[in-house]
Amino acid sequence: MIDGTPLPLADQRKPPRADAARNRALLLDAAAALAARCGAAAITMESVAAAAGVGKGTVSRRFGDRNGLLQALLDHSERQFQEAFLTGPPPLGPGADPLTRLHAYGPAAVRHEHLHRDLYLAAEPPPGRRYSVPAGQLRHRHVALLLRAALPDADAGLLAHTLLASVDRVLVDHLVREEGVSLERVEAAWHDLVDRLLGRRA
Amino acid sequence: MIDGTPLPLADQRKPPRADAARNRALLLDAAAALAARCGAAAITMESVAAAAGVGKGTVSRRFGDRNGLLQALLDHSERQFQEAFLTGPPPLGPGADPLTRLHAYGPAAVRHEHLHRDLYLAAEPPPGRRYSVPAGQLRHRHVALLLRAALPDADAGLLAHTLLASVDRVLVDHLVREEGVSLERVEAAWHDLVDRLLGRRA
Repeated sequence: MIDGTPLPLADQRKPPRADAARNRALLLDAAAALAARCGAAAITMESVAAAAGVGKGTVSRRFGDRNGLLQALLDHSERQFQEAFLTGPPPLGPGADPLTRLHAYGPAAVRHEHLHRDLYLAAEPPPGRRYSVPAGQLRHRHVALLLRAALPDADAGLLAHTLLASVDRVLVDHLVREEGVSLERVEAAWHDLVDRLLGRRA
Repeated sequence: MIDGTPLPLADQRKPPRADAARNRALLLDAAAALAARCGAAAITMESVAAAAGVGKGTVSRRFGDRNGLLQALLDHSERQFQEAFLTGPPPLGPGADPLTRLHAYGPAAVRHEHLHRDLYLAAEPPPGRRYSVPAGQLRHRHVALLLRAALPDADAGLLAHTLLASVDRVLVDHLVREEGVSLERVEAAWHDLVDRLLGRRA
């Protein structure tokens, strides 16, 4: 589940110490770099241990098994993206106006998910749960908030679904891999869509 | 008696006779009416036979088993919708201008799929096949063609994906059942989206 919250260990009473959290983040960074370079299939307890320069036992104690590692990796990746659009620097984060942030959101989502596509696509929920994943709901609230500010007379809730769907990871992966569409063309279509919705192309 | 004609044998070279095709369509219409009234779960070989006033053996000979019947029912339903937008009367079919047909498409798709939602949702493909279903590709070509005519300077291929995604059956079902959104609001958002894209709301 990509829900932005850490997966608490069942028997853990207190939060991990700062150095433990930092070491966990270092392991996940090493795993994320490996996945981006070689694909999620290359992620094993051994390969991540080697990439981080630690023993396999360290990775096992931290994540349990490969599934636990992949879940933690996806959570880590989604959290980085959430931080970027919620609290990161402009134009994606606060500090830029809503229209500028809307323009920045699409390409940021496309690039982030393309980099981590193996992880995201492997975790794609079945149709009945597509809109109830907390991470997706957070993205929707964010885009709807920007839309409400930039376009007060629109149905921001439904329009946010439309905008997000235009850069849906399954769609973008299909376009790139099956139809030879470039990420640049997907990004250009996002900017064009935002411009048209905001009446800049009339 | 709806089905007094012999079933064509597997090795028969000529197409089924017109009355056999008509009887098949009558069975499917009875099944579709039953599904719309009582849900797809109510569709059994027995219930369709009863609704059509024939024996269960007639239904079995025609469709094999329940899965075969449900698949035939979905094909039948999708074909009706295809005929409506490809060759039916305006404003959905030819005879109206592309902008008018675009406006008509969204509500027609939403109403059609809502009526047959059990069938469509049960057949929803897994993420990796979401964009390679032929019926979906035909819908995409149709909307892209209308967009190309109404909005020559847009990236019609990508924009058609966006428009179709705004009335995606899984999204609409989620909105209606989980968030209490009315079909009227979904339809209004479609018209607003088309108007904004076409610069009518600038």
